[in-house]
Amino acid sequence: MEKTTSLDHTKTTGHVDLVGAGPGDPELITLKGARLLEEADTVVYDRLVNPALLKFCRPDCDQIYVGKRKHCHSMPQARICELLVQLGNQGRHVVRLKGGDPYIFGRGGEEIEALVKAGISCSVVPGITAATGCAASTGIPLTHREHAQAVTFVTGHRKDGRIDLDWSLIARPHHTTVIYMGLSCIAEIVDGLAEHGMPSDTPVAVIARGSTPEQQEIVSTLGNITADTAKASLPSPALLIIGAVVLAKQVIALDDRKTEFQIHYPNAMIPASVPGCCQ
Amino acid sequence: MEKTTSLDHTKTTGHVDLVGAGPGDPELITLKGARLLEEADTVVYDRLVNPALLKFCRPDCDQIYVGKRKHCHSMPQARICELLVQLGNQGRHVVRLKGGDPYIFGRGGEEIEALVKAGISCSVVPGITAATGCAASTGIPLTHREHAQAVTFVTGHRKDGRIDLDWSLIARPHHTTVIYMGLSCIAEIVDGLAEHGMPSDTPVAVIARGSTPEQQEIVSTLGNITADTAKASLPSPALLIIGAVVLAKQVIALDDRKTEFQIHYPNAMIPASVPGCCQ
Repeated sequence: MEKTTSLDHTKTTGHVDLVGAGPGDPELITLKGARLLEEADTVVYDRLVNPALLKFCRPDCDQIYVGKRKHCHSMPQARICELLVQLGNQGRHVVRLKGGDPYIFGRGGEEIEALVKAGISCSVVPGITAATGCAASTGIPLTHREHAQAVTFVTGHRKDGRIDLDWSLIARPHHTTVIYMGLSCIAEIVDGLAEHGMPSDTPVAVIARGSTPEQQEIVSTLGNITADTAKASLPSPALLIIGAVVLAKQVIALDDRKTEFQIHYPNAMIPASVPGCCQ
Repeated sequence: MEKTTSLDHTKTTGHVDLVGAGPGDPELITLKGARLLEEADTVVYDRLVNPALLKFCRPDCDQIYVGKRKHCHSMPQARICELLVQLGNQGRHVVRLKGGDPYIFGRGGEEIEALVKAGISCSVVPGITAATGCAASTGIPLTHREHAQAVTFVTGHRKDGRIDLDWSLIARPHHTTVIYMGLSCIAEIVDGLAEHGMPSDTPVAVIARGSTPEQQEIVSTLGNITADTAKASLPSPALLIIGAVVLAKQVIALDDRKTEFQIHYPNAMIPASVPGCCQ
């Protein structure tokens, strides 16, 4: 549901920054993203954004929720684009806060197109995408000299009632495949990969709520993962990492600040010029 | 060249954080990465790391450079792993700062393996990888409903004197391919893609020093990109983005803080619990 906004019509030059919020842990936003949130007049944010990030906003910042949850109102993509253009035309400095990275399965391209077409100044601030966030929090390297020299990101979304994947692209050895939002279709994905020749002992990891204190992960094989995830009742959305890199998974330290979490901001100044030196 | 370190032998429990430094713009490190840099006893950093990030370190933090440049000493990977284990055993809190993301072409897997094998506590903090950093700074979405539903990251590194790419993986339509460090082999890459059926009018972008004030970008086609990059004398390393998404490139705002850059850190507090709400 939208919050009513009180717009300042005295400003004439608006600007919209599409900012990647990262994978879940609020401390995984970039410094630039956090700074822009603090400067914004208006924040337009999604369901997959950690609401803890809104703590960066000024007290007078308008916060507009455009995500969707089951049984809740949602805003279609075209309406979100219109809203951003409208806010830009009203002279607002807007942060459009999106889960992960705006340009990886984030529809950032569509929103930027609408803004540029309408003559609104805009920029994109990258975010940690779920693949790299979950890799880091589970200890699974996405590439590794001994296991995979390439990684592909796809979505497990259904289109016209069936899953829309290029099987020959992802069912291959010496290659890592990361499937975003693949949990609800996991049986179809597993069957499709098996039909396209992927061995049933191929390692698979499924990660839900990656990088947050509620992270759940299952490490299994293509042959067993469907049953294993059903048994564990993992929540959606979840990320699938498929390939030999899952064998390189190492048990690494958990974030010991999880229960009493507080961000400390370094106060160093960073200079404009970056000397290329070989110290 | 290495800086001599003065180690504190009173500590017995060391810890190593592999931290992704991001694509070049120092403001694109995560809040967590910046905090850990400020806390570290020792920072071990690479050539592709922006040295401006070292401003976060405490005055008494030991800084060890292990990268390589032409005509300069470099440290082999095995020696870097040994150094991290040694520092961990000496009770140091170490940040191993790597350009981009540690788990995407960053050899983070190898370093974590060595640390875990040696019983040293360690963690991985993801970073903005060059692909998403350059996409954001050039206005090229990596995925887009109308152009590409999948994206593959590979490297253009030579192995045994020749380029080691799975051509059938990357020479395909409706798909984005990002080639890291592909500039020095660009003619071989272009020829390989053409031989594997990629049309000569396939859009290609090459980005050097992405996300920094020195960014250079060329947008061309598979047929012309080799000549165009030679003419422009782009510096290495550079990133190649290949596929129809390059057509969706939009002219977006540049960072107007480039000439007088100064980071401002928000002072908001972020709570541990993240309520799932539908506001």
